[in-house]
Amino acid sequence: MAVADCGAAFLFSHPENCPNARRFSIQVPAGRSRLHIPLAMSSAAVPPPEEPPSPVRFGIMGCGSIARKLSRAMLLVGPAVDVAAVASRSRDKARLFAADNGLPAGTRLHGSYQALLDDPDIDAIYLPLPTSLHLKWATAAAERGKHLLLEKPTAPCAAELDHILAACEASGVQFMDSTMWMHNPRTAKMRQLIADHDTIGDVRVINSIVSFRANEEFLKNDIRVKPDLDGLGALGDIGWYCIRAILWAVGYELPKNVIALRHPVKNEAGVVLACGASLYWADGKVATFHCSFLTNLTMDVTVVGTNGTIHVTDLVIPYDEKYGPFSLDSKTNFTELTTGWDPHPSKNVVTTDLPQEALMVQEFCRLVRNIKDAGGKPEGKWPAITRKTQIVVDAVKTSIDNGCESVDVVS
Amino acid sequence: MAVADCGAAFLFSHPENCPNARRFSIQVPAGRSRLHIPLAMSSAAVPPPEEPPSPVRFGIMGCGSIARKLSRAMLLVGPAVDVAAVASRSRDKARLFAADNGLPAGTRLHGSYQALLDDPDIDAIYLPLPTSLHLKWATAAAERGKHLLLEKPTAPCAAELDHILAACEASGVQFMDSTMWMHNPRTAKMRQLIADHDTIGDVRVINSIVSFRANEEFLKNDIRVKPDLDGLGALGDIGWYCIRAILWAVGYELPKNVIALRHPVKNEAGVVLACGASLYWADGKVATFHCSFLTNLTMDVTVVGTNGTIHVTDLVIPYDEKYGPFSLDSKTNFTELTTGWDPHPSKNVVTTDLPQEALMVQEFCRLVRNIKDAGGKPEGKWPAITRKTQIVVDAVKTSIDNGCESVDVVS
Repeated sequence: MAVADCGAAFLFSHPENCPNARRFSIQVPAGRSRLHIPLAMSSAAVPPPEEPPSPVRFGIMGCGSIARKLSRAMLLVGPAVDVAAVASRSRDKARLFAADNGLPAGTRLHGSYQALLDDPDIDAIYLPLPTSLHLKWATAAAERGKHLLLEKPTAPCAAELDHILAACEASGVQFMDSTMWMHNPRTAKMRQLIADHDTIGDVRVINSIVSFRANEEFLKNDIRVKPDLDGLGALGDIGWYCIRAILWAVGYELPKNVIALRHPVKNEAGVVLACGASLYWADGKVATFHCSFLTNLTMDVTVVGTNGTIHVTDLVIPYDEKYGPFSLDSKTNFTELTTGWDPHPSKNVVTTDLPQEALMVQEFCRLVRNIKDAGGKPEGKWPAITRKTQIVVDAVKTSIDNGCESVDVVS
Repeated sequence: MAVADCGAAFLFSHPENCPNARRFSIQVPAGRSRLHIPLAMSSAAVPPPEEPPSPVRFGIMGCGSIARKLSRAMLLVGPAVDVAAVASRSRDKARLFAADNGLPAGTRLHGSYQALLDDPDIDAIYLPLPTSLHLKWATAAAERGKHLLLEKPTAPCAAELDHILAACEASGVQFMDSTMWMHNPRTAKMRQLIADHDTIGDVRVINSIVSFRANEEFLKNDIRVKPDLDGLGALGDIGWYCIRAILWAVGYELPKNVIALRHPVKNEAGVVLACGASLYWADGKVATFHCSFLTNLTMDVTVVGTNGTIHVTDLVIPYDEKYGPFSLDSKTNFTELTTGWDPHPSKNVVTTDLPQEALMVQEFCRLVRNIKDAGGKPEGKWPAITRKTQIVVDAVKTSIDNGCESVDVVS
């Protein structure tokens, strides 16, 4: 199993540009584990940079709770990121956010989103506003030449996303959606195993369940249950992860069609609180998923191939931000008289010094610096992956709206 | 959590009737586990029987590979079981089977199934013949007053099963299908947790994946790919487990309707090699499953409730016959800034001295003795559970045959 097999090698940041380049290692606990997974890469061999890179100057557009997590991530990345400005609908809110989250004294505070866009000393915008506002502000940011880290779901529908992506492309700015687990080194390790035909073989079946039990306050007032704010509800908020995980598992091959599971749960305003779907590929691969605001915290992805199976049960947010566990079965036989398994699954843990959201920021900044300092071009795989995810979200939403009939997925 | 909460208390055998009554304990490994699961019951307080019970005299009808596992189980149970006779289509085969499997010298060898039925010193028949032969031989056994432990799938369709069950009822004999994992103490422990509303809450979502990678010889010659022998293919052989597990998780409430997943895989003779379905209940519960002869060994059931989640990844055949691991999440929150989970899942192991197939034989024998020695009546819950499983298998098969349209489940 060589590094060249790693289909997600792009997930690794380049240590020479990142003073806090992460390390990771595979820990195989004593006991049943049979498999040794070699390190995919190590930063040890890379000499330290002679000069620190110029920081990427971030503006945070909106002070919702997810922005707190991201501002922490920016601070964790270190000098490669400058949290240059924060904007909210009032300057007081921005000030409070900066104070609560320990932002540097020099962070500029803006009382409107437009003021942030008018700030000339900003390279990139992190945009966690409600989805219904993405088209306006993401497009405006791109048109001002700001690189864009956009929260998911990226748009209410693919048509709006396409406007945003077109604006980014026209301005030559980097686009990335904020799907944090994509940047966990565990994700790269699992993708490496999936891509290794000897280990997993042909992926044939995938299941994903992502849910959390929202409280009454959430179900009444959160933006994710409001049709005019995050109208995709649970499908957009966490079904996004299921769909992304499924696409990730199949190397981003779009399914041919999707069929929503019957009886999605909606609130009085018609926003989905729980739903699911089955997805079908031309070659017979099949995936199912379920997402819900109404059941206990669950973040499963199971990938079953002809040769092996991968289980992960904390995909979206690891139990502990420094440890990424997963289980691997490969070429599993029954013991004599089918009284047991041989081999037992291997329990693996990928460790990381930086949490996945910081690694995301780090990777985004690497791409931004490549454009602004080295004359490079935006990395096209990130908007491409986003668009595929949004297209499948759209198809599931259409199936839900059409009485759970089959909907063709059209790129 | 009291013993009274245990919805599967019937799974526990009565130690006073079983010299080899099993013990089990919950082992919570050091580390992340937060949950202590009390013992549901202990055999320590029950005085030993004064006299050994009269053994149940078993006849094994058919010498397929699964019969090897069951004959070992009968020997493990000890003096409560007498492997009285073995029948095959030739006496030489029966002799070879007895020798290969270490059966007692006194085990009678029959060269036809009819000869076994004509053997007057048999209390019970274990019947592992191909499914297409169940109607004839299971009915004949019941009519001869033999208690019946029948391999799954129990029949090609519920109508044939109903003939078998009617014959058992008319003769007053015990019926049980040979779904071994039902008798693992882990199953009872998990059922106890599911039934405890505080722990799991309302079950809303279930997923099950059961598969093994059959080799070329199997896919060419095994009875499970032959339309005239086990015509339900993977659906009957392992989809049976998925469906049973789903019904088990919901307390055997039948779904209202089922819809097969598109594009089931069939062989040239039309036998299903891989398929799946979604199942829907009137109250909005939803389950999905997939079963396959074409992917790596996988035996998952995930039960997601409003308060908690249970994961088991070796449900049908535990990795090791003495240990039953499962994972439990209950009332799981995010940590501050949603950077982790609180609490982490508890990793639990239910141990057993006897493997699940021996516990099944033991429980079956307890029920038989209750009839033959104590004048009791057959335990009706076992045929009832079998019938519900078969009805759902039928509905999925009908959906597959009808182009994956919705099929109502009619009891």
